[in-house]
Amino acid sequence: MARPVTLFTGQWADLPLEVLADKAKEFGYDGLELACWGDHYDVTKSVTDPHYDGNLYALLKRKGLDVWAISNHLVGQAVCDLIDARHKAILPPHVWGDGDPEGVRQRATHEMRKTAWAASNLAGAAGHDIVVNGFTGSSIWHLLYSFPPVSPEMIEAGYKDFADRWNPILDVFDEVNVKFGLEVHPTEIAFDVVTAERAVKALGGRKAFGFNYDPSHLGYQGVDYVEFIYRFSDRIYHVHMKDVGWSSVPRPSGVFGGHLSFGNVNRYWDFRSLGRGNINFEEIIRAFNRINYKGPLSVEWEDSGMDREHGAKEACQFVKKLDFEPSATAFDAAFAEK
Amino acid sequence: MARPVTLFTGQWADLPLEVLADKAKEFGYDGLELACWGDHYDVTKSVTDPHYDGNLYALLKRKGLDVWAISNHLVGQAVCDLIDARHKAILPPHVWGDGDPEGVRQRATHEMRKTAWAASNLAGAAGHDIVVNGFTGSSIWHLLYSFPPVSPEMIEAGYKDFADRWNPILDVFDEVNVKFGLEVHPTEIAFDVVTAERAVKALGGRKAFGFNYDPSHLGYQGVDYVEFIYRFSDRIYHVHMKDVGWSSVPRPSGVFGGHLSFGNVNRYWDFRSLGRGNINFEEIIRAFNRINYKGPLSVEWEDSGMDREHGAKEACQFVKKLDFEPSATAFDAAFAEK
Amino acid sequence: MARPVTLFTGQWADLPLEVLADKAKEFGYDGLELACWGDHYDVTKSVTDPHYDGNLYALLKRKGLDVWAISNHLVGQAVCDLIDARHKAILPPHVWGDGDPEGVRQRATHEMRKTAWAASNLAGAAGHDIVVNGFTGSSIWHLLYSFPPVSPEMIEAGYKDFADRWNPILDVFDEVNVKFGLEVHPTEIAFDVVTAERAVKALGGRKAFGFNYDPSHLGYQGVDYVEFIYRFSDRIYHVHMKDVGWSSVPRPSGVFGGHLSFGNVNRYWDFRSLGRGNINFEEIIRAFNRINYKGPLSVEWEDSGMDREHGAKEACQFVKKLDFEPSATAFDAAFAEK
Amino acid sequence: MARPVTLFTGQWADLPLEVLADKAKEFGYDGLELACWGDHYDVTKSVTDPHYDGNLYALLKRKGLDVWAISNHLVGQAVCDLIDARHKAILPPHVWGDGDPEGVRQRATHEMRKTAWAASNLAGAAGHDIVVNGFTGSSIWHLLYSFPPVSPEMIEAGYKDFADRWNPILDVFDEVNVKFGLEVHPTEIAFDVVTAERAVKALGGRKAFGFNYDPSHLGYQGVDYVEFIYRFSDRIYHVHMKDVGWSSVPRPSGVFGGHLSFGNVNRYWDFRSLGRGNINFEEIIRAFNRINYKGPLSVEWEDSGMDREHGAKEACQFVKKLDFEPSATAFDAAFAEK
Amino acid sequence: MARPVTLFTGQWADLPLEVLADKAKEFGYDGLELACWGDHYDVTKSVTDPHYDGNLYALLKRKGLDVWAISNHLVGQAVCDLIDARHKAILPPHVWGDGDPEGVRQRATHEMRKTAWAASNLAGAAGHDIVVNGFTGSSIWHLLYSFPPVSPEMIEAGYKDFADRWNPILDVFDEVNVKFGLEVHPTEIAFDVVTAERAVKALGGRKAFGFNYDPSHLGYQGVDYVEFIYRFSDRIYHVHMKDVGWSSVPRPSGVFGGHLSFGNVNRYWDFRSLGRGNINFEEIIRAFNRINYKGPLSVEWEDSGMDREHGAKEACQFVKKLDFEPSATAFDAAFAEK
Amino acid sequence: MARPVTLFTGQWADLPLEVLADKAKEFGYDGLELACWGDHYDVTKSVTDPHYDGNLYALLKRKGLDVWAISNHLVGQAVCDLIDARHKAILPPHVWGDGDPEGVRQRATHEMRKTAWAASNLAGAAGHDIVVNGFTGSSIWHLLYSFPPVSPEMIEAGYKDFADRWNPILDVFDEVNVKFGLEVHPTEIAFDVVTAERAVKALGGRKAFGFNYDPSHLGYQGVDYVEFIYRFSDRIYHVHMKDVGWSSVPRPSGVFGGHLSFGNVNRYWDFRSLGRGNINFEEIIRAFNRINYKGPLSVEWEDSGMDREHGAKEACQFVKKLDFEPSATAFDAAFAEK
Repeated sequence: MARPVTLFTGQWADLPLEVLADKAKEFGYDGLELACWGDHYDVTKSVTDPHYDGNLYALLKRKGLDVWAISNHLVGQAVCDLIDARHKAILPPHVWGDGDPEGVRQRATHEMRKTAWAASNLAGAAGHDIVVNGFTGSSIWHLLYSFPPVSPEMIEAGYKDFADRWNPILDVFDEVNVKFGLEVHPTEIAFDVVTAERAVKALGGRKAFGFNYDPSHLGYQGVDYVEFIYRFSDRIYHVHMKDVGWSSVPRPSGVFGGHLSFGNVNRYWDFRSLGRGNINFEEIIRAFNRINYKGPLSVEWEDSGMDREHGAKEACQFVKKLDFEPSATAFDAAFAEK
Repeated sequence: MARPVTLFTGQWADLPLEVLADKAKEFGYDGLELACWGDHYDVTKSVTDPHYDGNLYALLKRKGLDVWAISNHLVGQAVCDLIDARHKAILPPHVWGDGDPEGVRQRATHEMRKTAWAASNLAGAAGHDIVVNGFTGSSIWHLLYSFPPVSPEMIEAGYKDFADRWNPILDVFDEVNVKFGLEVHPTEIAFDVVTAERAVKALGGRKAFGFNYDPSHLGYQGVDYVEFIYRFSDRIYHVHMKDVGWSSVPRPSGVFGGHLSFGNVNRYWDFRSLGRGNINFEEIIRAFNRINYKGPLSVEWEDSGMDREHGAKEACQFVKKLDFEPSATAFDAAFAEK
Repeated sequence: MARPVTLFTGQWADLPLEVLADKAKEFGYDGLELACWGDHYDVTKSVTDPHYDGNLYALLKRKGLDVWAISNHLVGQAVCDLIDARHKAILPPHVWGDGDPEGVRQRATHEMRKTAWAASNLAGAAGHDIVVNGFTGSSIWHLLYSFPPVSPEMIEAGYKDFADRWNPILDVFDEVNVKFGLEVHPTEIAFDVVTAERAVKALGGRKAFGFNYDPSHLGYQGVDYVEFIYRFSDRIYHVHMKDVGWSSVPRPSGVFGGHLSFGNVNRYWDFRSLGRGNINFEEIIRAFNRINYKGPLSVEWEDSGMDREHGAKEACQFVKKLDFEPSATAFDAAFAEK
Repeated sequence: MARPVTLFTGQWADLPLEVLADKAKEFGYDGLELACWGDHYDVTKSVTDPHYDGNLYALLKRKGLDVWAISNHLVGQAVCDLIDARHKAILPPHVWGDGDPEGVRQRATHEMRKTAWAASNLAGAAGHDIVVNGFTGSSIWHLLYSFPPVSPEMIEAGYKDFADRWNPILDVFDEVNVKFGLEVHPTEIAFDVVTAERAVKALGGRKAFGFNYDPSHLGYQGVDYVEFIYRFSDRIYHVHMKDVGWSSVPRPSGVFGGHLSFGNVNRYWDFRSLGRGNINFEEIIRAFNRINYKGPLSVEWEDSGMDREHGAKEACQFVKKLDFEPSATAFDAAFAEK
Repeated sequence: MARPVTLFTGQWADLPLEVLADKAKEFGYDGLELACWGDHYDVTKSVTDPHYDGNLYALLKRKGLDVWAISNHLVGQAVCDLIDARHKAILPPHVWGDGDPEGVRQRATHEMRKTAWAASNLAGAAGHDIVVNGFTGSSIWHLLYSFPPVSPEMIEAGYKDFADRWNPILDVFDEVNVKFGLEVHPTEIAFDVVTAERAVKALGGRKAFGFNYDPSHLGYQGVDYVEFIYRFSDRIYHVHMKDVGWSSVPRPSGVFGGHLSFGNVNRYWDFRSLGRGNINFEEIIRAFNRINYKGPLSVEWEDSGMDREHGAKEACQFVKKLDFEPSATAFDAAFAEK
Repeated sequence: MARPVTLFTGQWADLPLEVLADKAKEFGYDGLELACWGDHYDVTKSVTDPHYDGNLYALLKRKGLDVWAISNHLVGQAVCDLIDARHKAILPPHVWGDGDPEGVRQRATHEMRKTAWAASNLAGAAGHDIVVNGFTGSSIWHLLYSFPPVSPEMIEAGYKDFADRWNPILDVFDEVNVKFGLEVHPTEIAFDVVTAERAVKALGGRKAFGFNYDPSHLGYQGVDYVEFIYRFSDRIYHVHMKDVGWSSVPRPSGVFGGHLSFGNVNRYWDFRSLGRGNINFEEIIRAFNRINYKGPLSVEWEDSGMDREHGAKEACQFVKKLDFEPSATAFDAAFAEK
């Protein structure tokens, strides 16, 4: 049996969960990856209301859907970030508080610990593991281009800060036996293969920390996203199926984005509905088969030029046509004379 | 006659000017583009010592060299930047002062105004125009990736800050009839064609502001560096000949650099000795001919894997072999029967 | 709602309209783009028989089809061309007449004026606009390669001839509020972006004249067919979806065609059933969305190697799978905490 | 009507014919290409039991399938090969015998003569021609890389050996009016266009010998598999539709395979389910139309990374979507005014 | 010894031969290919003044140069062309006469016959063969794009016209034992491999007619210019070394040229100084070695963006560095133990 | 100081050493890599005549040359090979003996042990290390394509045979402190990265065994020859600079060679004079700098289409222009204000 195909609800937070669940089912999905914002998944309710996860899971099953992951990218981002006005828009009021940077970071840290507990509660209701996906933020992202010259010590300090802030969070993940999957992404402590290795090393290789693999953030940069799967074959805890297009010829702006909004015609790259970008998903599926990844393929649908309902539907079909089961037997066997 | 080929002295600031001048002559160069650091060009001396520029120019002529530009990238960077510890290492003590960010920015502003006066002094000694090349810094570079979401107003504020800080500097440039050439580069207010257009617009298109064209900062990003020349055909005030290599296949890190030092084998791109990278200089020379650029071709030599003296010599030969004079006559003329 | 998909009837002129309409419906089309030859659309009847357009439109609706354009390429070609024996085969007898070149051109001019009136009549019957697509011919196409040397004045004279002959035609289009869409194509006054700009300029930019965009005539030449859409964003009056294949390796003949018939194995390029050639329709649809083109996507099916009924059916499916509605909302909105 | 799509049974020899026939029908196939091993087709029974072919063909028709070819690759391989332990595993006991090399070759020769008679019997039952596909083996394959230096005489001797051994076999094919199709393949006397020409020439061009065209063995080598069709347009007796993927970037092993099993991640190339590799089947179908090949398109399905039932089904759909009928009429005809 | 490198004088007709000869020698050339216009080579004088060729050849030898070809492209063009005003500018008055098209063609025919005699005279003076290079013109070039549809008969008539007009010219070439080399080129009867084959066939394959091979007219069209050498291995009578650049990305105009002058920035292709375009001369030299071409490599220098003297010098160096002698011995020989 | 450039004498064995030494010096080389055949280096004399190496080295120094390696490819090949008639031509009579395969292998083994002693002698004379380059042969090369199916045990047996035969040879290398460099090459136990790793592992990683790196045998196969350098950074004992060209388009034969001699026009790949093939030597030199390879760059010149003296000279210039010294200092240092 092929892998379940789920829809990440983050880009649909304006819709109530019930409405979205009906749509997702109609589009052909097997489940949802629930965002911890909008009304899709409420971490606080989970840790305070003993019926919350049970009711939620029952709702999903009624809709013919399942769930294997919850995602708290927005709060996770605040754990290591240099906090500024942009964060206010993406954080819940009780995390933002008075906006004092260190205070925000500490409240975000606490919220991520709660998220582990919540995932554990939902796992109990579902009867199977629930992964937490998310971002980590980074205190050194702004140093990405080394001018004025950046010293190795500055970078090292950034990874230490990451470890100091996330180890206490991951302790809770270990306690409740839940895994955290970082979506490797610009602005995070890891945004390519090299920095992902460095992040794993900063944490001493602890197994609570792994990845929500998403090729769309790697391909346009020139990062080898297939190699990523082999290098971290035992830490791919969840997968985002998301496509991105980039130009085959030079453009007025480049990978750095030209301070242009998504969808601007002068951009070098942009997210695209699955199958309409440059990501080679065939090689990705073969790599998943080789590392024996059996989890869901979760569509994070984003394409600033397309109606999202049209897109979510075609994306689901694309993934179902693409995915396949590995071979159970060696080939030459059938050649032998019996 | 082809264009003069000069050597930018910024990467040789550890050598005294006299020593470097001898080397440059021996490598085959026609002149120097003087860095305003090391002992190569001293802005303060120029504006305080009436003999400074005359003596300096006499020295160069004795060595068989000329000069068409001075460069003050390091101080210019501090005008708009969010100042931090990195800037202390690149600024002269009288600009850094106590390191208070706004104070640093204002002292850097004052220093750039002085640089215009100094260029005017040197122009007087040389008997021809002297361009000032440099950086501008940027208060919004760290917002390059739009997550957490960046509002258009935040970007707009960055360009306004740039205009507010640089207009007073450019007023002096206008007074003394000197041009400023921004080297479009990551961490600056302009780092591609789109942001260069926006920077020009922020200044109301004033002619004191133009570009020190350098393709090496554009090519690896995916920016159309030949188109840049045509779009800004009347604002190319100076040229850096600098090459950069980038991978034809995906790598463990990408355009964002993976927090890796130059020269690291896992990098996607790196600066390269001229002719050993991916920049198509043939098309660049043809574009210069079309826009009638007649200034120097200044080699900014940088290649973390090569001995710099070996490199500076081969780079000079490369440029001299590449450059050519445009045609003076139409072609079909010679076909006609006389 | 996505755009309607229509079938251009020009390649099916051997079939009566009724027969073709049934087939087109069965293939999946939403409408027809009627050729003004065969029995598909008769300009003379339209301007002489007050019931003609009403009956015709009723017939189409009965078949479950609509119409948004009529096409008179063959007569349009004769307006500017240097007339020779080839034109006799493609012109109706009353336009060809005695074949005297200037007489043919004048009669063709008159016929194109009538075509505008006819389109107006059909628009009345349909209750919405009808575009006239077509060719213009050119008195200078044979000068395309500049040997023996061609003077700028000779080319200029060609564009003046074009303006002198087409302005009177376009006056009628303006009178009856109909648009003319030139299919940019070899042998016409415009066959790439540059000549299209020149044609528009020759007419003083009058709005009656625009384009029936067809990428198949541009791609194999090396012309930037996506850029065409942005340059003429307010003059794309109609669209032909037609594919073309060209070789990735050199061949015994090239773009100039080697005087070989379509389908010859030695050709460098050939028209292909949609989706089997090299045109990047994904980028085209995105460009249409950006310029807000809302008209039909009309399949001009041509592939010398394929059975046309097989092809027309797969082409319709291809376009319907490809086309999509643009996004109604910005993306980051859904990220915000509510 | 498009060509029939068949499934080659060689990779399914572990399944009884009845079981496989049901599956093939369900996957969408029109027929089977029967392997002469497993219980799929038994050459000895055919030549000894007068009811065998009639019963077999009746079984197929009952299942809704037909047959146009039988394949005896394994025995054919032994005709020219330097026999070693590997051959024992692929030969029936009565051909292997005591394993003495020359004895094995002679018994294999006899078996291939019997295969021609058997094909003739099956043709009688089916009422149409049956092709025999297979391998030839080669006494010189191990000399493929010319070090230690290989003399032209050594190669010539290999082709003479081939002719000496196969001419007597082909005499029987001529007698019973059956064609033999060599699958051009590494380890055979022909493995590219050049060696295929040489093999044909070694046999004096006799028509009993032609090819079972299979692009998968040619593409990864860098051999022009489309040109193959034109060069041997009158000798393409049967076709295998089989895909192969190869890397666009260099790998730890290359075309020579690195002594690695199929499916190993370090391989440069591997067989792939149809449509997931690099073979350009569009050009192949167009070439088949040009040479007027009307036989079956037989799927030889092989992909070490995919479940074979999933694959055989998608492959059948792929071929049916790809294949098309050629045009019956010239195109310009429809343009003419009637 | 490598092949001699000569300079074609056609693009230097504004300079007297003596002046040009000095320059060519200084640039490094071994000889000149003399244009039959300007004062470089005068066909009429050759056939009327018995001392003309002797004096001319003595002049060249005094300058240290030799000659292996004369070129009469301009008059040759008029033999088959549809004559119009453009031809007046390129023809000598005694050929143009009153400009009546058929009269011009006949006088051009006569002039080409004289050119053969002249070449024979020069060969006598030089003591070795002299080739005549040139154009043929074409009565069907304007029909290159088949719309309005062009019948096969029209094309056939063009080749017959070519044969009818050139056979009498070639009769003289045969009489005086001189070869004619057509430069395959747009606007000529042959402009790619396919039309070159057709031209040869139209003349019944007579050996007086061959080619002045010039890859620059083939490459940008997509024609296989290396294959050309192998197909016509016994008819390559002379060689033009000329480079051409074409774009790797689509442009505002394409191969058809957009009615733009050479040098225009919007062109898709343009002639380039040797080594600065896209032609792969390495493969060309290897092909010349294989077919045993031993004649001169004649630089036809054309680059609308470069000073011609700069260019002619670098082109000569380029060819001398590129060309090499073939191997005299097989390689493996040296491996053998003695 | 850049690396010395030497000429491998294997392809010049028909010339006496004295003659070749003069030529090499004139071509610009710094030394020779001596072949152990022809009269270039005689292993037997070295181990029997105590003056041989001293005299030889004195001769080289007199010619202005040095030596860092001797090469015994031909005898090494016989150690593991399945011996046949081809080996007789490349082996000295005392190794070939009666040609009995196992006897030949044992005598070749003994000769390779002697070669280590000889290298040690020459090192004594030269006062620096001498590497022995060579081949190993392979008992499993003929199994490269896995049909008839090859079992893993068969391959494993081949590596065991290799270890059993080479360990006793390498024992002598260890005793006399000499290194052996296998030239990874088709027909050897290692012919790509994967098999090179397996060969090293079969020998337990002993340091006497490393590589004579030669990219020309890897590139055309699709093997990552730059990665090879990083994987075996401590085992690159010597380097062959040899280029190879391969086609960018499919050809009548492919990587397997079509049983065609080198130089045949239908080949997919062929060795080429340095700089005229596809190998990216720029990346190779940068990799050598990174792994700190300081040995000679030895030109193994082979190009079946070029005169070898012409080639050896241009190859020497090519390598000297390409090679460069690494940077001694970090780059940012020079930016700092002093």
